[in-house]
Amino acid sequence: MKNLKVPIIIVNYKTYSEATGKKAVKLSKIAEKVSIESGVNISVAPQFTDIAAIAGTVSIPVLAQHIDPISPGSFTGHILLESVKEAGAVGTLINHSERRLKLCAIETIIAKARESDMVSVVCTNNAAVSAAVAALNPTIISLEPPELIGTGIPVSKAKPEVVTETVELVKRINPDAVLLCGAGITKGEDVAAALKLGTMGVLVASGIVKAKDPRKVLMEFSEAITKTL
Amino acid sequence: MKNLKVPIIIVNYKTYSEATGKKAVKLSKIAEKVSIESGVNISVAPQFTDIAAIAGTVSIPVLAQHIDPISPGSFTGHILLESVKEAGAVGTLINHSERRLKLCAIETIIAKARESDMVSVVCTNNAAVSAAVAALNPTIISLEPPELIGTGIPVSKAKPEVVTETVELVKRINPDAVLLCGAGITKGEDVAAALKLGTMGVLVASGIVKAKDPRKVLMEFSEAITKTL
Amino acid sequence: MKNLKVPIIIVNYKTYSEATGKKAVKLSKIAEKVSIESGVNISVAPQFTDIAAIAGTVSIPVLAQHIDPISPGSFTGHILLESVKEAGAVGTLINHSERRLKLCAIETIIAKARESDMVSVVCTNNAAVSAAVAALNPTIISLEPPELIGTGIPVSKAKPEVVTETVELVKRINPDAVLLCGAGITKGEDVAAALKLGTMGVLVASGIVKAKDPRKVLMEFSEAITKTL
Amino acid sequence: MKNLKVPIIIVNYKTYSEATGKKAVKLSKIAEKVSIESGVNISVAPQFTDIAAIAGTVSIPVLAQHIDPISPGSFTGHILLESVKEAGAVGTLINHSERRLKLCAIETIIAKARESDMVSVVCTNNAAVSAAVAALNPTIISLEPPELIGTGIPVSKAKPEVVTETVELVKRINPDAVLLCGAGITKGEDVAAALKLGTMGVLVASGIVKAKDPRKVLMEFSEAITKTL
Repeated sequence: MKNLKVPIIIVNYKTYSEATGKKAVKLSKIAEKVSIESGVNISVAPQFTDIAAIAGTVSIPVLAQHIDPISPGSFTGHILLESVKEAGAVGTLINHSERRLKLCAIETIIAKARESDMVSVVCTNNAAVSAAVAALNPTIISLEPPELIGTGIPVSKAKPEVVTETVELVKRINPDAVLLCGAGITKGEDVAAALKLGTMGVLVASGIVKAKDPRKVLMEFSEAITKTL
Repeated sequence: MKNLKVPIIIVNYKTYSEATGKKAVKLSKIAEKVSIESGVNISVAPQFTDIAAIAGTVSIPVLAQHIDPISPGSFTGHILLESVKEAGAVGTLINHSERRLKLCAIETIIAKARESDMVSVVCTNNAAVSAAVAALNPTIISLEPPELIGTGIPVSKAKPEVVTETVELVKRINPDAVLLCGAGITKGEDVAAALKLGTMGVLVASGIVKAKDPRKVLMEFSEAITKTL
Repeated sequence: MKNLKVPIIIVNYKTYSEATGKKAVKLSKIAEKVSIESGVNISVAPQFTDIAAIAGTVSIPVLAQHIDPISPGSFTGHILLESVKEAGAVGTLINHSERRLKLCAIETIIAKARESDMVSVVCTNNAAVSAAVAALNPTIISLEPPELIGTGIPVSKAKPEVVTETVELVKRINPDAVLLCGAGITKGEDVAAALKLGTMGVLVASGIVKAKDPRKVLMEFSEAITKTL
Repeated sequence: MKNLKVPIIIVNYKTYSEATGKKAVKLSKIAEKVSIESGVNISVAPQFTDIAAIAGTVSIPVLAQHIDPISPGSFTGHILLESVKEAGAVGTLINHSERRLKLCAIETIIAKARESDMVSVVCTNNAAVSAAVAALNPTIISLEPPELIGTGIPVSKAKPEVVTETVELVKRINPDAVLLCGAGITKGEDVAAALKLGTMGVLVASGIVKAKDPRKVLMEFSEAITKTL
């Protein structure tokens, strides 16, 4: 798993204005600082336009939020793996609930990422879909029940049985699979709960990006990981 | 029409490897040089990841290849106007044949661009669609019959009647509309033919990006514009 | 305008269980009866699977809810104009807010409908989009602000200025254009208001399909049309 | 596996004019006759508009070509499971190469089909995607390398190793999985080859629909199945 170590906190910047342009670079420096101080792995997933500036500024791994299942050529307006890689991304989110993909596209993107030594983090909405994705051997599977995204109701506490079922189903198909979970994560105890259920970390967005003090929340998350392991 | 003056040559970098990353910056410097030397307006439309580096390096206007009809918020993997603007783009291509959009998305994006003082360059495939787009008041309409894209058969010579019909239909709906044409443009005479048919320039991709000597072809295009006017 | 006369009430059956299969045929018989009794034009737009049974049972015009921009060939799972026509539909809804289409698809479908003597009813979400559609010369344009669909708040009363602006903008581009409006229409007075604003009828769904007594509501709508004209 | 027995020949009518409307009913009668005469299971997948007429005429199982991941409600222009079921379909094709779906839609549709005692036949493009689908427990998985569809080059002979690898990978995840293959099947020997590689039949389209004598080709396919087993 190049450049990305688990357990990990991945921060998805979405298209939040709090994490666009200069603000995205600033937030990434905060994430880097917390990662260095706490010793916990943190990765950030900014918008495409901000990847180069962030990857050129911080040492923590940067992910794209999406790539298209294409090779270099005539694909105006699409996202090319080679392009986000040259900009400095070490991998990409795939199939986020806000950017669901066709199954054959997911398979193509995971395979392309593997060939290019890029990390693939595939988002899923339930246990069955997670099992299907496990058969495609991505680097990481991140379970995010869409109904909890942005709610502040943590999947790890509101639906622990979904996480447990997913871990079990996924491991049966792919014993080496690495699972994260996301949606509604806002406190250290949510992160701790996620790890206790068998995941290797969290995928979080508004919980950090829209926090009054992102540094403080990231530190709380990191300490929860350190204490739980 | 902020930052973009006509007549103009717009170079679409698509996701060509010849116009990705450092190569995209290099090609943009060539375009800038030709623009300064010839006095002809040239704009470039690179991939999202390359906008900031190019806009920070050259003085010619930079366009995004696409934006999504969204506002800041929860839109993982999407393209935000505010994001490409902060990166340095002065506008965007919309509805390219390789990235066709829903009608209501085209309308939203044009309106958002207008509110943000951004240039909107909407691609169209025939006269009727161009007329529909003219009713939406974009900055520029660019006619590109998809069957000619990448063929080297220039729309301005192979289908002059389509260009003429489009100019006429569009002007009836919106007398101030500015029209470009594209597809198959590889020679100065194709550019000259486009201008004579009533357009204000060309949208070109492989004709420049995949040319052995892009500088030479851009100069040939520029001279054709200077001579024709 | 083959088979479809205005003023008209078009009833969209969506995928409501109250208007699926046998229930769809039954509701169509009610619509036919009201149309005959009141002398007001009523058309129904059932699901694809129900077109043949309905068109074979009632004499009022039947519309498809959508068709794809395709010709006969290899398009598994798509909707072919020739297929809905042979089943008995005289036309189709296009670009409903629940089935938005790419601009080039809308243009292709309208052109195909015209060539096949089929009626094209294009749904739009605001005045600008309606103007764009007017440039494509469909049979009918139906304005439906999506935020009002299914609310019971009638567009003709809540946003009369949007209807007026749309009528004006559309007529400027295409003086022969026929406009309907929809969204939130549940009472006769909503229909009357729609006509007074310059439309030639309404596109309605839940207001009829989910009414306790669809016959009664349809009769109320029909009387509103008769009285207003 | 309700109503559908293997080994089987499934005939996809696509949107071919040779298999639209009355011609679709006629072709279905031929398929029924061959099935009765040969004792081999044959199923047909016509367009939505033709399901009711065909299911009301023949006794062989009828499949839809696609359904959407929706429940009854506001989904204008979409395909509702309940609707194709009431029309007489016993199941549906899912994710055909001409109608690829998002992973989460495939999962939802398979689950909905299961709850409704409907057959789910999921098309796949390679071994990895087939394995992912196997984790979702559909009734049948049908491997169809898209590059061979409509070519007359049979997957079972041109790419036997892909079929073998798929069978193996799929069985590892789901030992009860039933596999078909398709693409390029035009002769009895192609069908025999498919069975020998471990599949339980074929999904075929132009090979039957566009044959000069569909009856003869269907009989040849059926005999190949009878002889091979």
